[in-house]
Amino acid sequence: MSMNDAGQKLTDIAERIVETYKKEGGINRIDGVNLPATAPVVEILDDLMEILFPGYFGKRVPARSNILFFVQSAIDRLFLRLLDEFKRACQYAQSIDAFDGEITRTTCEEKALSLIDCIPHIRSLLKKDITAGFEGDPASKSLEEIISCYPYVYAIATHRIAHEIYKMEIPLIPRIMSEWAHRRTSIDIHPGAIIGKSFFIDHGTGVVIGETAKIGDNVKIYQGVTLGALSFKKNPDGSLEKSGKRHPTVENDVTIYSGATILGGETVIGEKCIIGANTWITSSVPAGTLVTYQDQQIYRVAKRNIAVHKRGENGKTKNSDPVI
Amino acid sequence: MSMNDAGQKLTDIAERIVETYKKEGGINRIDGVNLPATAPVVEILDDLMEILFPGYFGKRVPARSNILFFVQSAIDRLFLRLLDEFKRACQYAQSIDAFDGEITRTTCEEKALSLIDCIPHIRSLLKKDITAGFEGDPASKSLEEIISCYPYVYAIATHRIAHEIYKMEIPLIPRIMSEWAHRRTSIDIHPGAIIGKSFFIDHGTGVVIGETAKIGDNVKIYQGVTLGALSFKKNPDGSLEKSGKRHPTVENDVTIYSGATILGGETVIGEKCIIGANTWITSSVPAGTLVTYQDQQIYRVAKRNIAVHKRGENGKTKNSDPVI
Amino acid sequence: MSMNDAGQKLTDIAERIVETYKKEGGINRIDGVNLPATAPVVEILDDLMEILFPGYFGKRVPARSNILFFVQSAIDRLFLRLLDEFKRACQYAQSIDAFDGEITRTTCEEKALSLIDCIPHIRSLLKKDITAGFEGDPASKSLEEIISCYPYVYAIATHRIAHEIYKMEIPLIPRIMSEWAHRRTSIDIHPGAIIGKSFFIDHGTGVVIGETAKIGDNVKIYQGVTLGALSFKKNPDGSLEKSGKRHPTVENDVTIYSGATILGGETVIGEKCIIGANTWITSSVPAGTLVTYQDQQIYRVAKRNIAVHKRGENGKTKNSDPVI
Repeated sequence: MSMNDAGQKLTDIAERIVETYKKEGGINRIDGVNLPATAPVVEILDDLMEILFPGYFGKRVPARSNILFFVQSAIDRLFLRLLDEFKRACQYAQSIDAFDGEITRTTCEEKALSLIDCIPHIRSLLKKDITAGFEGDPASKSLEEIISCYPYVYAIATHRIAHEIYKMEIPLIPRIMSEWAHRRTSIDIHPGAIIGKSFFIDHGTGVVIGETAKIGDNVKIYQGVTLGALSFKKNPDGSLEKSGKRHPTVENDVTIYSGATILGGETVIGEKCIIGANTWITSSVPAGTLVTYQDQQIYRVAKRNIAVHKRGENGKTKNSDPVI
Repeated sequence: MSMNDAGQKLTDIAERIVETYKKEGGINRIDGVNLPATAPVVEILDDLMEILFPGYFGKRVPARSNILFFVQSAIDRLFLRLLDEFKRACQYAQSIDAFDGEITRTTCEEKALSLIDCIPHIRSLLKKDITAGFEGDPASKSLEEIISCYPYVYAIATHRIAHEIYKMEIPLIPRIMSEWAHRRTSIDIHPGAIIGKSFFIDHGTGVVIGETAKIGDNVKIYQGVTLGALSFKKNPDGSLEKSGKRHPTVENDVTIYSGATILGGETVIGEKCIIGANTWITSSVPAGTLVTYQDQQIYRVAKRNIAVHKRGENGKTKNSDPVI
Repeated sequence: MSMNDAGQKLTDIAERIVETYKKEGGINRIDGVNLPATAPVVEILDDLMEILFPGYFGKRVPARSNILFFVQSAIDRLFLRLLDEFKRACQYAQSIDAFDGEITRTTCEEKALSLIDCIPHIRSLLKKDITAGFEGDPASKSLEEIISCYPYVYAIATHRIAHEIYKMEIPLIPRIMSEWAHRRTSIDIHPGAIIGKSFFIDHGTGVVIGETAKIGDNVKIYQGVTLGALSFKKNPDGSLEKSGKRHPTVENDVTIYSGATILGGETVIGEKCIIGANTWITSSVPAGTLVTYQDQQIYRVAKRNIAVHKRGENGKTKNSDPVI
């Protein structure tokens, strides 16, 4: 084939492709419709990580003598970036009639300041999350190791940021952030999820926490745990109902071991429960219960008699308490 | 230790390492034996994503006034890159006697043009895949959110490209592409798999779809689902037989919930089945069946009586239908 | 809001953030306390990959005529980088009283040379690991494809390096390496784990191998397999005991299929066992046993009678042997 022939074929294909841009709309962004993109949102995350964990994630290691300048310059830059992306997100939302508010520079400024104002509070939450990791994992040697080496730190830090933006009802940006953290850590936490203090995820690959999940304090979970939806309600027209509580509630001091699947908006895991590896739970578990893979059959029968497995009364388990 | 001593020791080690290059052959590429490498193949993927989803994945956001020029320059660059890598792949295959065809510039040009010619068709398939995501996930707010934030979009787009190249019997490149998408999204789809229209993977981490899997239309799957091989046939000499159908068939309108493991080349999941989370299936499931984790014991017994759980006749399930 | 107002608010927030740096210590690195960071450690991994698999991972493809120079320049650069990071790691360990040894330039030089000296041995182990992949996966077409496309290669190469550094009792660096590989491949192997020859992980997403796991030769595992801890011993003061064997032992010639969870420091999977997908094992399995998901109930009952399922005597399985 001569280069002329190839060139002509390519031109024909180019024209057919442009035709599809008209025909298959909805998956193009032409004329630069304003939309937050991954790269600028990731830069915002980078700025935030540099302030939340100074000296760990960023390039600069601050010195005590200029720490205030370090922070001031970081949040000045962050403020301008947030303003830009918030405006894009809100303009996009207005263009699809998904946003009731009025976009003004003032509104976006207030939201950007409001987020930055959360930083001290987010830092104190993260300090507890990291301490929970140190206290909860026999393999961890120091807090520094947790921050440098444990993927859940990046995931929970991103979540606590994305959740604040989610509460402001700014579209797209929270999910771009959580999907970036998902890509980096294989931990998938929807920005809508409510997570209490001292939260620890060990290993983490495959964890999925849904939009309307609610997690208490001192909760520890392992890889492959799903807090998911049980059934999807439909509207009269057959489309999915996209609101309402669809994901479980986990109360304080619960430990959920690897591969456990817990489903349903009305499912409550009571406080101090231990949920064993590879269990499958679609109804509430009373406080203080130990549920294991082997017990699942027995538990199902026992439900009728309201016989529960209290911690310590676990003659049915195979090994020493707790079993995971 | 003086720097002289260290230097001498390093020289000795260097010589021993070179010795191993001769001794442990097979894991070196010396003298630049032509082999497609990850970086150029990823650039090809980047080019394709820019054309498939203009304004989303690439750096450039095209304007309506120059859209044809945008596409022409993109596919011109793509054509040359494809030509390069296809030639390397085919030369490599010839060098290990794995390729029967003759490498000519013409053959590679034809294959490169043929792939680019698929783009309009791939775009229309992807439009359906993304619509399936919007209709199938209560948490999704718009098509833009699906493309920006849902990892399965990158995975299925890469797959539909890699599958075309796989059908052309070009070695290595399809798997480099699918492993790149795997690395980015934790979704592992072999380029040989055949996937129908309107395919949706929610969450996605841990999904594995094998080389000879066949999936119909309107199929929805969740994180951790495996469509894998059941047993590995051996040749008379003890080596593995590397051909034949080893992975399941999934018919139209099936939903497979998280963690389900479905195995075997003769296993067929009939249309409209709902496969529950954490189930384990190694034999065919008749159309319209609901299989759940709890039912697995009952299902195994019931198989003898050909008693199947039809949708709606699910007195054995614990919660409202469908249970996941 | 005027820019003055925004500026003033930002200044106030900056001051509050600096206050938290004092209040929530432990998650800052201020005054550049020496700590190994991810970027320099990843550069060390890049150098090592270039030497272990010449022509695959690095930018340079060596020619036979200058192969010795290629290796010498690579290991000279590697030596200096190792020296730097080893010193930082040991200074950090001394600063938290976690390191008994004395930091001298000599000590770090010796350790750096010692690691580089391992390279020929690590290469020969990796040759066997890659051959195991080719022989163990029907979908693989060549050794080149294994190295280019299979994520476990990067994971096991990183592990064999990190394990040597772990044995030298150098802190942080081994875990930074393993977490980098985890991020890249979704395979999570603690650097303390002991892994024998000809090790193969197919697919890999979600594999977790704990610090005190011990794996023999010719072991093959699939995605989502956990070799984890069963229970966490506590010290008298309530803190976790961070030593002792907590993870399983897997003997030679074992195959562990996807999603299997095997837990406990005293749990031994005997040689030639086949552990089925989605099984859950918390006590030892005798050599030559086939354990499947369906058998789990039967196995639990049979344990009392010391009735074991020998390979070939598997009337209880549903399909042909082996079932995965």
